[in-house]
Amino acid sequence: MKRVVTVPLGERAYDIWIGRGLGADALEGLAAPRRLLLVTDTHVAPLLADAWQARLTAWGARVTRSEVPAGEATKNMAVAARLCEEAARAGLDRRDLIVALGGGMVGDLAGFVAAIYLRGVRFIQIPTTLLAMVDSSVGGKTGVNLPQGKNLVGCFHQPIRVIADLAALDSLPAREFRSGLAEVVKYGVIADRALFERLESEADAVLARADDRLAAIVARSCELKAAVVCADEREGGLRAILNYGHTFGHALENAAGYGAWLHGEAVAVGMVFAAALSARVRGLAPDDAARQGALLARFGLPVRLAPGAAPWPAFRALMDADKKTVGGVPRFVLAPRLGTAEPGCVVGEADLTAAVAAIRPPAAAGDGG
Amino acid sequence: MKRVVTVPLGERAYDIWIGRGLGADALEGLAAPRRLLLVTDTHVAPLLADAWQARLTAWGARVTRSEVPAGEATKNMAVAARLCEEAARAGLDRRDLIVALGGGMVGDLAGFVAAIYLRGVRFIQIPTTLLAMVDSSVGGKTGVNLPQGKNLVGCFHQPIRVIADLAALDSLPAREFRSGLAEVVKYGVIADRALFERLESEADAVLARADDRLAAIVARSCELKAAVVCADEREGGLRAILNYGHTFGHALENAAGYGAWLHGEAVAVGMVFAAALSARVRGLAPDDAARQGALLARFGLPVRLAPGAAPWPAFRALMDADKKTVGGVPRFVLAPRLGTAEPGCVVGEADLTAAVAAIRPPAAAGDGG
Repeated sequence: MKRVVTVPLGERAYDIWIGRGLGADALEGLAAPRRLLLVTDTHVAPLLADAWQARLTAWGARVTRSEVPAGEATKNMAVAARLCEEAARAGLDRRDLIVALGGGMVGDLAGFVAAIYLRGVRFIQIPTTLLAMVDSSVGGKTGVNLPQGKNLVGCFHQPIRVIADLAALDSLPAREFRSGLAEVVKYGVIADRALFERLESEADAVLARADDRLAAIVARSCELKAAVVCADEREGGLRAILNYGHTFGHALENAAGYGAWLHGEAVAVGMVFAAALSARVRGLAPDDAARQGALLARFGLPVRLAPGAAPWPAFRALMDADKKTVGGVPRFVLAPRLGTAEPGCVVGEADLTAAVAAIRPPAAAGDGG
Repeated sequence: MKRVVTVPLGERAYDIWIGRGLGADALEGLAAPRRLLLVTDTHVAPLLADAWQARLTAWGARVTRSEVPAGEATKNMAVAARLCEEAARAGLDRRDLIVALGGGMVGDLAGFVAAIYLRGVRFIQIPTTLLAMVDSSVGGKTGVNLPQGKNLVGCFHQPIRVIADLAALDSLPAREFRSGLAEVVKYGVIADRALFERLESEADAVLARADDRLAAIVARSCELKAAVVCADEREGGLRAILNYGHTFGHALENAAGYGAWLHGEAVAVGMVFAAALSARVRGLAPDDAARQGALLARFGLPVRLAPGAAPWPAFRALMDADKKTVGGVPRFVLAPRLGTAEPGCVVGEADLTAAVAAIRPPAAAGDGG
């Protein structure tokens, strides 16, 4: 069983293939390059790189494999420069191809290299985490981090194909799997109440990673993200709804030091915060705010700050520095109802500090303000 | 007297202002940013940076100035990364602006930073060399070099305004000025026989840098390049005609070590080579081939290799590695007549080696091969 989701971006349209045991057939319809650079990381390489290198070689390409250290610290300009040099040494020309085999870090990094090498070459993503399948493989955002913040450098560059093989998830640690589920819950909240309610009713099958459930939620997530991205490819307005839970989530990731929280974990807490804000200032029913926290918790995701977390002013300052800031004022995505989101909301200080109560660590529940 | 050339790229359309003594009025019609990063180099800064910093500050922006070492060696990924970090430290957000004040190196580098910082911010070019005015300020190509070759990394990113103040040319060394004239001659050869013939008849006034002649040739060069770029923004086909003289020119720059030849000097020799090839395989009248060399020589540009230049096979290998290579075969732009060019020409080895005779160094004129 395979599903194909088309991201209809005109001349940059591409297909996402989703299924178990996808192999070289998932390259159907694409012209093989003479040379390609296969970028992967030290976690993924021992599990999946030999098989993909063999398939890509059989396709007709001379494959140069480049392994980068696993972990977010690798996603920087110096490593991007090194990969560009490897592409040049391997002799890749404008008709050639870069393939990302890995999670979001590898996809963002290799996609950025594909965007800038020779001012842009073709790019295929083979995401190996749930998060990368439902989030970073749709939308064409590529980039690297600066010491000053995540994803502060990058390009929009669409892949020509995304190959989401569910078999890659078999070896994914539970914590990483749950982190991906946070983004799936997000799609339900911002754009598809029926998806949200299916996640509630089928949570056990999802956590058991049943193939049919995984294929369905990956495909639906990609469809929802694709619809938003196609309406607003360059992030002028609507696309910002995808950042539901992310303004606070990014501040949380940053305050804790990158790597302490997985992206989806930080977004889960950010969603609980955004839900509380939405209830205060956009009339979200309190029950529907509570359901978001309950579903995230059922998926084993954190829904509060950890005891000993940074104080509110630290998060506040980090949100001010977020690149989504416009003129120095942070903007929030709020959800007036389950399945609907509103981007660009400016929220008063009193409402922000009040909403923090929803995510205060349990040990500090009795503390003041 | 000022001239304005519009580059009609739809929603990315922009104006090039050309004249003497252009100041803050050349910012007319643009919204001032809150913050801007002014990128310049150590040659240009003492001459022009204070005046522009004052104008940009008076416009309403908080200006952070960043000086990079003059010279092509600065145009690399590490310096681009450092400038991105400076933009982040200065707090530039998505509505803010990067300004390049300098020659082609500064424009390419700062333009690349503007293309990738926050996935793209607005960008103004203030070119200070003739070459940058007529070439790199039109077309949106930005980028940096790799150890493996020039401009192997980059993006297409259009400026929102180009300000070509002829006063900046007053301090331009004669050799740099002549290097810029090579590209002007090129526009005549590939697209405008009348321009070519005006350059022949008005060569003295051009070399004397008469304002009216300079404004006219800068404006006409920008118009011609804009017409080509607008027909083919992403370099699918026609745009390649702008590389007349560049396939060999790049190899020459590379073989001699960057900096030994100025870009326009190498392109001048490359044009004589391309003219000889055009006469052999595209029926260019031998007189019209000779006129190209004569005009370039009148402008004080080299039209032959230097004695002791690398042997032909070295150039041949460098052309094979050029990024314009398609499937490993170098393509040439040829001119069947003055004013007309044909991109993507594949030329046989015998014709290539025969055309080398046209640029053989004088001292070696009697040698074999």
